[in-house]
Amino acid sequence: MKPTANVLLTGFDPFGGETINPSWEAVRALDGEIVAGRTIRAVQLPTVFGRSLTVLRAALKRFRPDVVICVGQAGGRPQLSLERVAINVDDARIPDNAGKQPVDRAIARDGPAAYFSTLPIKAMRAALADAGVPAEISQTAGTFVCNHVFYGLMHALAATPNVRGGFVHIPFLPAQAARHAGAPSLAQEDVTRALRVMLATALATRADRRIGGGATH
Amino acid sequence: MKPTANVLLTGFDPFGGETINPSWEAVRALDGEIVAGRTIRAVQLPTVFGRSLTVLRAALKRFRPDVVICVGQAGGRPQLSLERVAINVDDARIPDNAGKQPVDRAIARDGPAAYFSTLPIKAMRAALADAGVPAEISQTAGTFVCNHVFYGLMHALAATPNVRGGFVHIPFLPAQAARHAGAPSLAQEDVTRALRVMLATALATRADRRIGGGATH
Amino acid sequence: MKPTANVLLTGFDPFGGETINPSWEAVRALDGEIVAGRTIRAVQLPTVFGRSLTVLRAALKRFRPDVVICVGQAGGRPQLSLERVAINVDDARIPDNAGKQPVDRAIARDGPAAYFSTLPIKAMRAALADAGVPAEISQTAGTFVCNHVFYGLMHALAATPNVRGGFVHIPFLPAQAARHAGAPSLAQEDVTRALRVMLATALATRADRRIGGGATH
Amino acid sequence: MKPTANVLLTGFDPFGGETINPSWEAVRALDGEIVAGRTIRAVQLPTVFGRSLTVLRAALKRFRPDVVICVGQAGGRPQLSLERVAINVDDARIPDNAGKQPVDRAIARDGPAAYFSTLPIKAMRAALADAGVPAEISQTAGTFVCNHVFYGLMHALAATPNVRGGFVHIPFLPAQAARHAGAPSLAQEDVTRALRVMLATALATRADRRIGGGATH
Repeated sequence: MKPTANVLLTGFDPFGGETINPSWEAVRALDGEIVAGRTIRAVQLPTVFGRSLTVLRAALKRFRPDVVICVGQAGGRPQLSLERVAINVDDARIPDNAGKQPVDRAIARDGPAAYFSTLPIKAMRAALADAGVPAEISQTAGTFVCNHVFYGLMHALAATPNVRGGFVHIPFLPAQAARHAGAPSLAQEDVTRALRVMLATALATRADRRIGGGATH
Repeated sequence: MKPTANVLLTGFDPFGGETINPSWEAVRALDGEIVAGRTIRAVQLPTVFGRSLTVLRAALKRFRPDVVICVGQAGGRPQLSLERVAINVDDARIPDNAGKQPVDRAIARDGPAAYFSTLPIKAMRAALADAGVPAEISQTAGTFVCNHVFYGLMHALAATPNVRGGFVHIPFLPAQAARHAGAPSLAQEDVTRALRVMLATALATRADRRIGGGATH
Repeated sequence: MKPTANVLLTGFDPFGGETINPSWEAVRALDGEIVAGRTIRAVQLPTVFGRSLTVLRAALKRFRPDVVICVGQAGGRPQLSLERVAINVDDARIPDNAGKQPVDRAIARDGPAAYFSTLPIKAMRAALADAGVPAEISQTAGTFVCNHVFYGLMHALAATPNVRGGFVHIPFLPAQAARHAGAPSLAQEDVTRALRVMLATALATRADRRIGGGATH
Repeated sequence: MKPTANVLLTGFDPFGGETINPSWEAVRALDGEIVAGRTIRAVQLPTVFGRSLTVLRAALKRFRPDVVICVGQAGGRPQLSLERVAINVDDARIPDNAGKQPVDRAIARDGPAAYFSTLPIKAMRAALADAGVPAEISQTAGTFVCNHVFYGLMHALAATPNVRGGFVHIPFLPAQAARHAGAPSLAQEDVTRALRVMLATALATRADRRIGGGATH
C-alpha cells in the first residue's frame, strides 16, 4: 500500500552566476522515494526573497508533511551545515534572482527575532558521522534567501508544533568547485545519501540528543 | 564639570589556557575617559556562565549607562566583529572558568529565541573603516560565554529601550597569536581606538544606516 | 595484446592517526587498468622517511614506467594539488610511521635545492577542470614524507629525462572528514577518475601549456 | 664613531590596487638606524619583474651589506612569514606594476631550481616568539615579484657566501585590511620591531637552530 504521509524536501534554483544548484540536484534525486513509511516530496524554490516563501507555503499546504528539510547551497563551506537558528532579517550581499537586494529588512514584521530548528540536529549529525558524511552544527544560516526561507518555514510551522522543520546548507558540487579556486565540494551522491540519513533520524527521534555542537565564538 | 552620565564597557578575564584577555586590556585602558559627555566605566566579567551576568547586571544598576558595549576575545577571527544577534542557548565547546560546560540549555527560560543588537552596527562599521580599523558585521556570537553575556545584556535592557547595547568580538593580541600557529591578531591600541570610535558613533547615531553587511550563508 | 609499457602510481599507508589513506585507496583502484596503451601499476609506499624511497626505487626498477605520479594525503586541502616543486629538506611536524621526526635535514646531500615536476601540470589542471574535478597548482608539497618522496622520485629520474614524474596531493575522504571538524573532502571515485584524466593528459602532452597557475605569495 | 658596515632592508612600492605597501612603510622607518654595529639601509624596489632586481643589485653593490632582508606584502597572510625557499619560476596571477604577467618563465636561465634562505629563520622565529610577534616558517614565497626578488637576491649572493640573505612576507596594515573583508593585519610598529629583532638575531647567529618548522603538506 502506498504511504499517505509525506515528508518535504526543498532545493533552490541556481543563483550567483552558477548554472546548477547542488541543493536541487540532491533533493530531486529523492522525489517519490519512500522513507520510514512516508513519501518524499521534492520541491524547487526560486532564489528570490518573498516568492520562495510563497512556493514553500503552497507545498506545505499541498503535501502536509510532518518533517520538512529545506536545503541550500553554501559555496565555500566544506561540510554539511545543520543550521541551528533562523533570524528575522534580510541583508543581501548579492541580488537575488529577481534583482532584489534588501538591507536590514525584517522577514516577518510581527515575527520574533529568531526561530530555532525543530529538527533533532545533534542526533542527525551523530547519524551522519556514523554514515561517514562530514557535517557540522552551524550557528548562522546567513542573511540571504536561505535564511529567509528557513525563517519563513519556521514562522509558517509555528502554528503546527507537530510538524518539524529546519535547514541544511551544503557545499558546492565538485564540478562547481572546479571553477572556484580553493573551494571545497561534496559529491551529490553523498548529499543525497545524507538526506536519507537525516530524514530517517528525524522521523525516529523525538527529543534531540544532548551532544556538544557549539562554537566558542 | 564632571559628566554625570556613563557609558559601560565590559571585558572578560582570561580563559581557554590564555594568561591575558585582550577584551579586558582594551576596555580597562578607557576606564574613566570622557567620550561625548559621558564617563566610560570599564568592568571585568568572569568567563563563567551565570556569574558573568550577575556582575553585568550589578554594573548596569550601579552606572546606569545609556550605551553598553560588551567585548570578548574571538581567537582566530581576523577583524573586529560587530555582533548582530544573540541567541538563547548555551552550548559550550570548552568548559568555562568554573568548569561548567552546558549543552543546549536556554539562557532565559522565558526569553525569546534571540535579541538583535540595539547598537548602530552599520554606522559603527563605516566609522571604523574611515578610521582604518578592520571590522566586520558578524551574524553569530557563538554559543559560549560571549553569546551568553550578549543575550543576558539584551534581556536585561529589554525593559529600558532608551539604553542601547551590543557585543563586539576582537582578535587575539599579537603576543597571543605568537603562540598560536597561523592565528591573526590586532594590537591593543587599535582595539582601544576602535572602542572610542564605536562609542562616539553610537552616541551620535539614533537610527542605524542602511548599509549592506550580510552573509550569503 | 597486453601492453608491455607501464605507468606507475604510488599511494601511502595511513598515518597521523588515520586508519585509511585516500591516496592508496585511489591508486589501488586503478592497478592493472590500461591507459593509452600502458598498464597502470599501483604500489603502496610506507609513510616513513628513507624506506618510502627504497620501495619507490624498487618499483621504478621493476616496472620501468615512462610516467610516474606519486599521490599523498593532504588533510585539510580542499582540492587536488598538482605539485610544482619538491625541495631538498625534511622538516617533520609529526613523527613518521617509524617514529622518526627529522628537522632541517637534506634528503640528498649531493642533490640540488629543488626539482620541478616534469609532468605537464598546467595541461593536467585544464583537463581536470573540463572533467569537473576541482584541482589547483600548488607551490609547496610541504616538508614531510610526501615532499620527501616527491624529491626522491625526481632525484631518481634525473638520469632518465624521458621518464616523467611528479606528485599530487589529495584531500581527505568524506568518511575521514566526518571525524575532523571543518575539514573538506573529495570522494575516492572523483580522485580515481582524476588520476585517469591526469595519466592520459601526461601521456598525450609533451610540452606543457602556458596557462597561469601562480600564487601572488 | 659611525659604523662602516651596513645591513640592507628592502620594501616594495604599492601594487594590486593598494595605495600603500606595508613592506616599504616598515623598512623605511628603520633607515639609518644602527643595529649591532651596522647601519640599516632601506631601499624601495619597484613591484616589477626584472627592474626590481636591477635596483636590488645596485643596492647590494652600493652598500655591501653582510645581511639582507627583503620584505614584501602578503595580503591575506595572518603572521610574518619567514620564507624558507625561493624557486626559479615567474608565474604571475596579476600583472606587475609595468603591466607584465609572465607565465612559467625561469628567473635565471642558468640558475638552479631553487635557493634556500641563508638567514637563520628558525632562530629568528624563536626570537620573534619571545618578543611577542606572531611569525611562521613559510615553505613558499609564491611565484610573483616577491619570489622573483628572493630568488634574484640569492642568485646574486651565491658568489659571496659570507653575505647572508632571505625574504620575509608581512600581512596587510590594519588600514588596508579595513578595505578587505576578512583580511588579517599587523600594525607597522610590530613589523618594524620584528625587523629589529630579526636583524639582531641574524647578526648574532651563525648556524641556525634545529627547531621544527615544517608543514605536513
